[in-house]
Amino acid sequence: MKHIYNDDSLALHTDLYQINMAEAYWRDKMHNRKAVFELFFRKLPFGNGYAVFAGLERVIQYMQNFRFAESDLEYLKEEAKYDDDFLDYLRNLRFTGTIRSMKEGELVFGNEPILRVDAPLAEAQLIETALLNIINYQTLIATKASRVKHVVGDQTAMEFGTRRAQEMDAAVWGTRAAYLAGFQATSNVRAGKMFGIPVAGTHAHSLVQAYRDEYEAFHTYASAHKDCVFLVDTYDTLRSGVPNAIKVARELGDKINFKAIRLDSGDLAYLSKESRKMLDKAGFTETKIVASSDLDEYTIMHLKAQGAEIDSWGIGTKLITAYDQAALGAVYKIVAIEDENGNMTDSIKISGNPEKVTTPGLKKVYRIINNDNNKSEGDYIAMEDENPQEEERLKMFHPVHTYISKFVTNFTAKDLHEDIYVDGQLVYELPCLEELREYAAENLSLLWAEYRRTLNPEEYPVDLSQKCWENKMRNIDEVREKVNKITEE
Amino acid sequence: MKHIYNDDSLALHTDLYQINMAEAYWRDKMHNRKAVFELFFRKLPFGNGYAVFAGLERVIQYMQNFRFAESDLEYLKEEAKYDDDFLDYLRNLRFTGTIRSMKEGELVFGNEPILRVDAPLAEAQLIETALLNIINYQTLIATKASRVKHVVGDQTAMEFGTRRAQEMDAAVWGTRAAYLAGFQATSNVRAGKMFGIPVAGTHAHSLVQAYRDEYEAFHTYASAHKDCVFLVDTYDTLRSGVPNAIKVARELGDKINFKAIRLDSGDLAYLSKESRKMLDKAGFTETKIVASSDLDEYTIMHLKAQGAEIDSWGIGTKLITAYDQAALGAVYKIVAIEDENGNMTDSIKISGNPEKVTTPGLKKVYRIINNDNNKSEGDYIAMEDENPQEEERLKMFHPVHTYISKFVTNFTAKDLHEDIYVDGQLVYELPCLEELREYAAENLSLLWAEYRRTLNPEEYPVDLSQKCWENKMRNIDEVREKVNKITEE
Repeated sequence: MKHIYNDDSLALHTDLYQINMAEAYWRDKMHNRKAVFELFFRKLPFGNGYAVFAGLERVIQYMQNFRFAESDLEYLKEEAKYDDDFLDYLRNLRFTGTIRSMKEGELVFGNEPILRVDAPLAEAQLIETALLNIINYQTLIATKASRVKHVVGDQTAMEFGTRRAQEMDAAVWGTRAAYLAGFQATSNVRAGKMFGIPVAGTHAHSLVQAYRDEYEAFHTYASAHKDCVFLVDTYDTLRSGVPNAIKVARELGDKINFKAIRLDSGDLAYLSKESRKMLDKAGFTETKIVASSDLDEYTIMHLKAQGAEIDSWGIGTKLITAYDQAALGAVYKIVAIEDENGNMTDSIKISGNPEKVTTPGLKKVYRIINNDNNKSEGDYIAMEDENPQEEERLKMFHPVHTYISKFVTNFTAKDLHEDIYVDGQLVYELPCLEELREYAAENLSLLWAEYRRTLNPEEYPVDLSQKCWENKMRNIDEVREKVNKITEE
Repeated sequence: MKHIYNDDSLALHTDLYQINMAEAYWRDKMHNRKAVFELFFRKLPFGNGYAVFAGLERVIQYMQNFRFAESDLEYLKEEAKYDDDFLDYLRNLRFTGTIRSMKEGELVFGNEPILRVDAPLAEAQLIETALLNIINYQTLIATKASRVKHVVGDQTAMEFGTRRAQEMDAAVWGTRAAYLAGFQATSNVRAGKMFGIPVAGTHAHSLVQAYRDEYEAFHTYASAHKDCVFLVDTYDTLRSGVPNAIKVARELGDKINFKAIRLDSGDLAYLSKESRKMLDKAGFTETKIVASSDLDEYTIMHLKAQGAEIDSWGIGTKLITAYDQAALGAVYKIVAIEDENGNMTDSIKISGNPEKVTTPGLKKVYRIINNDNNKSEGDYIAMEDENPQEEERLKMFHPVHTYISKFVTNFTAKDLHEDIYVDGQLVYELPCLEELREYAAENLSLLWAEYRRTLNPEEYPVDLSQKCWENKMRNIDEVREKVNKITEE
């Protein structure tokens, strides 16, 4: 197999154009100009009112190992025909920039920087693709998981999706994102080992089939596993599965702990209610009912509305692939660049689609928390030299529909970014996953319920400071003038 | 970070229940009973008329490294509380079974075994999850890519999706699947290195923004890259981008090869037609137009119908995530198990959903190719001891609507499976990717156009032999009798 390299690195896990651009910059001696990029998405996924940021730990793992391996350089020389002098530059390249980012578990909204990179232009460019690849997926899944957990409520939500995940990395990192956002367990044992997530699982239909006799299969399984969850739908849930489970549980008595039955097909509302009656009648009132079978936040809500007697939910395909919206569209855009005199100058991208126009300049993003009720009033993007906390009355206005505005007093302006890398050095101590999970849960409590509901949530404000807004308008005007000049030529 | 283990293996990349079952089998001394599992999906994705199988190379990579590492065993002991004797069994476990599989690039349909595992029960069980994880994703993407390529036709289709892929493995293995199914290039450099796929790419908006002046940016880029593709939509495609590209190309003349412009936003039909006129008027009639921007088979077909002047297509998000159907539902089901006397006995899974009832027994799958026209008459699943090639008139009938039937004469019955592992030894020599790509293209020519169209294709026949069908009916009856007995008790 051609693809096994002993020195495999992830430096080539990028788009070719990043390397092309790095080369152009390097030839033109632009590569070390300081550039500032922001990573953000424009639109919340699933019509949700918020997203849950995840991916930073994996980004750090990638950054810590960021360097071109010899086989990478050989490949670039032989296949992509780059010159030796440029390859020497790549060989010695290390990330020397600064990265500020939100913490994982932070709630994030459209058009605000999740992460900001201040780095030599070529370095900032070369890491773009991997950062987007990582953050887009994990943030998508954490957000989906948060929606599912919202509907599951105090009951148990378990991630069961590995077999349908989009390859192996998605299975484990998606599981981590789901746990971060409130899931309680996973079936993926490797994710359990890697991240310390509790693992859960019972047996498959194949166990019942291997013994051919369901009763015998349950009996044998129970002998090996004191804590029993029987999968009851191999042949016929109500006529075979549940009766056999009850029979085995009665026979083995105190020798086992008849924890649950699991339903994996059929009409879950009906089957769960009938199973509940059968279990109760047999005296197993403490035995729970676990359900799985293409579940998501919509089916769970409907099952609950129908009074389904389900205590615990295994969620697979629809979660791990974010089935109803399989990608988050985060982008990574340059907002400032050092000019030939060493000054930082703004950079803007204009588009026929108004929502694609970027917000230029060196900026920070704050969450404005009302001290009276500890609820968030919205997020506030300001120029770096502004400090919203110094304002007595902070004016917040919609960056497009500017007439929508309000004044906020008695607030705390929380800087949403932390230093991750400073001048190439990792300065951030990664919190453990449990800590991040608590952080994610706490953050949700800052939002009014109207932002948290899964259908038609209220739009959470992400506003620009007056100065930031004016700066953006000025930049737009400058570009339009330039374009007009070209047309006149 | 907790998850870095020096001896990391993929043996734990499985669902906990597989290990639970292995333990139950082992305790009951059932673990070495010979079992036969089949891997198949029930329903073709995207409403397509066929799927393109991909994933075998990755399956072999996984199988070759299948063993529990010490850290895996430690984890299982400490966190999952398995006993030492069972862990010793896992420590020494190596795959000793036989795997037969379709080749990558084979066309595959619902309810036929892509792959068959004959192995000791516990071994067959432990590899299930990873095999499904790999094959589900890669087959899904190869199929999606085949649809896109069908619409793109003789033009160029390039994979541009890394930043939106579901984590890193999906980006590279998805790209490989797309190339296998007919794509011509990728932007992912690592996939280029790993698999020898041609890489493609130009520059991003950020290059234009970094220079602030589009003309200067194009000029500098062209100086470093003789073969130029200019991205023209940073500020204004028709008023700035295309004019600047033409200006630079005129100035640099023979020093560059003005290969193409790239459109990445806006109305691609309109912009491409206007750009084409401008390029032609300036004498650059050979300069191509590349388009990207949330493309898939539907948008491409519509753009073509509108007469868009696009020569080359960059397809990202919608391909690499299989956006309109983000998962393939392949399953892995036991069809036979050795009994206490050493005889293989059938195993069936019954379900309230008729399409979920499995087809029991030791079987083979054939493609019935009409020798007169070299077109396929359908696939034919027979018991292992049958040989359809020996039939003079082969009766093929629909396994559900049995009145739909036909007789085929003068045919070749092609066994779709090859030996991959025999008694634990890899006996299959992996073809190179180019070979598989050609194989995939050849296979398509076996199908009538009515099976290949992207909308409402004709249903391709996947039939059971008379013996296989009767055997299935007998097994269903046996189970129903058994269930009835339980209910009567």
